[in-house]
Amino acid sequence: MNRLLNSIIENNRKWTKEGQVASYIPELSKVDSNLLGICISTLGGEEHCAGDSDTKFTIQSISKIVTLMLAILDNGKDYVFSKVGMEPTDTSFNSIVNLEIKDAHKPINPMINAGAIATVSMIAGKDSEEVFERILKFTRKISNNPNIGINDSVYKSEKETGDRNRALAYFMKGTGVLDGNVEEILNVYFKQCSIEVTCRDLARIGAMLANDGIMPWSGERVVPRDVARIVKTIMVTCGMYDASGKFAVQIGVPAKSGVGGGILACVPRRMGVAVLGPALDEKGNSLAGIKVMEELSKQLDLSIF
Amino acid sequence: MNRLLNSIIENNRKWTKEGQVASYIPELSKVDSNLLGICISTLGGEEHCAGDSDTKFTIQSISKIVTLMLAILDNGKDYVFSKVGMEPTDTSFNSIVNLEIKDAHKPINPMINAGAIATVSMIAGKDSEEVFERILKFTRKISNNPNIGINDSVYKSEKETGDRNRALAYFMKGTGVLDGNVEEILNVYFKQCSIEVTCRDLARIGAMLANDGIMPWSGERVVPRDVARIVKTIMVTCGMYDASGKFAVQIGVPAKSGVGGGILACVPRRMGVAVLGPALDEKGNSLAGIKVMEELSKQLDLSIF
Amino acid sequence: MNRLLNSIIENNRKWTKEGQVASYIPELSKVDSNLLGICISTLGGEEHCAGDSDTKFTIQSISKIVTLMLAILDNGKDYVFSKVGMEPTDTSFNSIVNLEIKDAHKPINPMINAGAIATVSMIAGKDSEEVFERILKFTRKISNNPNIGINDSVYKSEKETGDRNRALAYFMKGTGVLDGNVEEILNVYFKQCSIEVTCRDLARIGAMLANDGIMPWSGERVVPRDVARIVKTIMVTCGMYDASGKFAVQIGVPAKSGVGGGILACVPRRMGVAVLGPALDEKGNSLAGIKVMEELSKQLDLSIF
Amino acid sequence: MNRLLNSIIENNRKWTKEGQVASYIPELSKVDSNLLGICISTLGGEEHCAGDSDTKFTIQSISKIVTLMLAILDNGKDYVFSKVGMEPTDTSFNSIVNLEIKDAHKPINPMINAGAIATVSMIAGKDSEEVFERILKFTRKISNNPNIGINDSVYKSEKETGDRNRALAYFMKGTGVLDGNVEEILNVYFKQCSIEVTCRDLARIGAMLANDGIMPWSGERVVPRDVARIVKTIMVTCGMYDASGKFAVQIGVPAKSGVGGGILACVPRRMGVAVLGPALDEKGNSLAGIKVMEELSKQLDLSIF
Repeated sequence: MNRLLNSIIENNRKWTKEGQVASYIPELSKVDSNLLGICISTLGGEEHCAGDSDTKFTIQSISKIVTLMLAILDNGKDYVFSKVGMEPTDTSFNSIVNLEIKDAHKPINPMINAGAIATVSMIAGKDSEEVFERILKFTRKISNNPNIGINDSVYKSEKETGDRNRALAYFMKGTGVLDGNVEEILNVYFKQCSIEVTCRDLARIGAMLANDGIMPWSGERVVPRDVARIVKTIMVTCGMYDASGKFAVQIGVPAKSGVGGGILACVPRRMGVAVLGPALDEKGNSLAGIKVMEELSKQLDLSIF
Repeated sequence: MNRLLNSIIENNRKWTKEGQVASYIPELSKVDSNLLGICISTLGGEEHCAGDSDTKFTIQSISKIVTLMLAILDNGKDYVFSKVGMEPTDTSFNSIVNLEIKDAHKPINPMINAGAIATVSMIAGKDSEEVFERILKFTRKISNNPNIGINDSVYKSEKETGDRNRALAYFMKGTGVLDGNVEEILNVYFKQCSIEVTCRDLARIGAMLANDGIMPWSGERVVPRDVARIVKTIMVTCGMYDASGKFAVQIGVPAKSGVGGGILACVPRRMGVAVLGPALDEKGNSLAGIKVMEELSKQLDLSIF
Repeated sequence: MNRLLNSIIENNRKWTKEGQVASYIPELSKVDSNLLGICISTLGGEEHCAGDSDTKFTIQSISKIVTLMLAILDNGKDYVFSKVGMEPTDTSFNSIVNLEIKDAHKPINPMINAGAIATVSMIAGKDSEEVFERILKFTRKISNNPNIGINDSVYKSEKETGDRNRALAYFMKGTGVLDGNVEEILNVYFKQCSIEVTCRDLARIGAMLANDGIMPWSGERVVPRDVARIVKTIMVTCGMYDASGKFAVQIGVPAKSGVGGGILACVPRRMGVAVLGPALDEKGNSLAGIKVMEELSKQLDLSIF
Repeated sequence: MNRLLNSIIENNRKWTKEGQVASYIPELSKVDSNLLGICISTLGGEEHCAGDSDTKFTIQSISKIVTLMLAILDNGKDYVFSKVGMEPTDTSFNSIVNLEIKDAHKPINPMINAGAIATVSMIAGKDSEEVFERILKFTRKISNNPNIGINDSVYKSEKETGDRNRALAYFMKGTGVLDGNVEEILNVYFKQCSIEVTCRDLARIGAMLANDGIMPWSGERVVPRDVARIVKTIMVTCGMYDASGKFAVQIGVPAKSGVGGGILACVPRRMGVAVLGPALDEKGNSLAGIKVMEELSKQLDLSIF
């Protein structure tokens, strides 16, 4: 397995030259675009890694699946999905159009920014600090890494330049989707996006989901089976933004990408997988990361379809 | 199994009172809204049916997966997907908006009307008659039913009232997506929608897909494994129109619906399933049919996620 | 006045090198892009021309004001505006989006293609031939030119390549805006667009409108005052497509452009003006024609605001 | 004239029962919906009023023409229109869609909220207080009323509930349309909307515009002729939101409405007119106010077309 992973990394390193590191958050543009790493965490508890698998990077949108789980645990799925839809969209991750022309009261799914901001607003906590502490604690637990923290300069950069997210949040505040203080909610959102992880961390989260909500390393259940299933399903239909359809056809497993260059994938009943490749394609997904996933899926016949 | 199916039909018969039979095609509005049927076709070759499982109804949009397979067999997947996308959409099945504001040269997926019309235009044949004959023959083969034909009055009704589809087709002709004579292409499309099938027929098509392209009853392969997989994947992301996301979460199997009231589903490596329930919800999917699928999925734990 | 017109033509001839002759109708792409002409027809009955003022060109969208007048004469303004709106739009002249997302039952104004097709469908006549004959006769009358006819090769070219217009028409047929046979209605529309006129012809139509519906040369009223006024108003808000706002600010008179390169303008209570310049800007308006109008408006202080 | 105005007010008082007082700003919903007033200010310096012509109400969107003039005076028209367009739109006054799908860098015109916020951001001043002071001073001058101030409770209500405007502003901040501090800019915008005026005040502003920028009562020029003309033109094409086309056809004069129930109109070279009627139609324009304007326009033949 290690040999396979090493060879996949080598085969696809050329793709790191294509694509662009995210630049709309200034701090992200400083990331090394040559990085390429992969880690697999099996349900049997094994971990296989190759390339830059222990390099830290910011989790960005991959955090949306973490907060979705937490929001459902706090409120029940019925309440959460009364506030956020579960349909895929052909609009981009930061689109505001559907809030105006479709349904101002329900962002279309929890994987686009509008839906993720609405999701985080539902997480319990007496103030924004406590809400974020709960997110961080939950992230540490499901990744089995108590040392996870945030990248402070990315967080500040996100906060400073997050005007599109402010537009989404104030729009939803105006139509009643969001309760509470918008800047507080956004503050949590900017922080959750700035959580620093490695491929190893994310692969474990994937393994927990692949194992229907039970952490393989401890046997402890962290989310009910149906919650794990909901999250995996939404990852397939919406996880790779408006390239989710193509990813499903070509790779065929639940996955979620982030503009930090990470992709978290999980193969139900088999394994969690995470890759890192900061140069992005025009949809905002890791270009080399998708290539790595594609080769891995073919080699190990991972598609669930 | 038969007992289970009978009980599911009984439990959900009440839902046939909700929803509306499709009315935009006059002939369809005459269908009996009380019908409810189900058929399962396993990979072991067994068939279990309940309710109105042998009642004929028009296949409508379920034909889109048949013509997608045929178009790929004729042209290869690369060519087909250079002309039609594979992304889910939040617009309705007959929407024209994306052709203008997104990409006039590529309907977003083969399951919406625009994409299906583009797909059928790629099927080989010296004239529209031969094209349709090939579609009919292929449908008969993969459903193991040589008696399948079309409902002539539905076909005429579709043709007469198919102005929205004409709009889609002429728009695509204008932007170069469609080659050839628009009325001829539409004629094939109206005919393919008017093919009459039963739940039993569709369940077999589902079984063939579940079996990765091999017909369980004969062991004969009709489509390559990767084609079967592509079709199943697109069924998950786009098969239930702009309610595909919810269907995936609640039922979790590849499926395609038609406004005739049918739903064809397949459970990879296990079975094909088909249900009939002509009263539709506001998205155009069988209302009672979805309820039946939901109970079946829970009882047999069918979700692939 | 003649000296002024000659000098304006000379000053602006350079602009004929910018812009592009319409190419989506193959026959139009053969037009000489160097043409530049102007004609003024005053309420006192004088005519002043310069440049290529007697060169024939196809009227194209300028015919929309002719058919709007005729449709109102035939049906009354209340009926016409129950079928077609009177609001300006930020979408392009051949846009279909608003029919889907705004109001499928009412194209937004009679100056975009959808609205113009709906307008022509309301003109009386026992068949499409008679409808067109009435349009032609009316055009001859209000331009005081009994020799006006159609350009047959442009007509055939329009008909052959008019798939976008077919899409608009079938869409409206599907939603009930259009009664009757779509191809017949389109046939009239393609013919009306192919009517051949000169600047002199159009300037006279402008003079009649400027004179509140009375032809200055004969004193005969052809349309009631309020109909002339409605047409002039809609020319200001919608006449130059989605560049109407800028044209109103910079030139300030009711005007209608056509992709044949013509612009018909009228200065209420003063004169009709027509210019020809086949090279178009990206909105589909005559690029040099607008420059000519701009200089003329400044020199003669034409703005109505 | 006074008799005419009184009779028009009486004839149209019934319309105050239709429509709805604006409710999205809580403080506005307290306004008396029965109010109806009119004031005319001629170029000869006469003033004729009827009904509730001296009742104060908040200026709301009518302030957009004041700030447009000031922004042009401060920056020149070329700069202003490099940042804001001048095309009419078929979207509503608070729409955000075009910023995403058309041109994120240029709101479509200065009469919709996005454009008005961009406009106010260009007005000179060392801080938001000074900017607003300049707006207030200019408003007092062109209305010849040194006592004009703001309605503090409306201002606070606007500020508290102005989340849709915040969404617009942050969106434009994100795309670079807005420089400077968003909350400061919005603060000025909320204040300018809360300026309290009477019909008499607005009629004088209308008279100044009708007089090409010269205040009739003093003979002093406050804006150059071409600026007055630009403003009047944009009032015709965009002043009544997405009902501007209909207003132009039926009434035919430059006008701007506000959700406070006011309409400011001007008849070039003749008079300024202002009406008050707080109950709004579904486009956000004074319902009875439009009826009053319609009758006045017919009686005095005001249409410029």
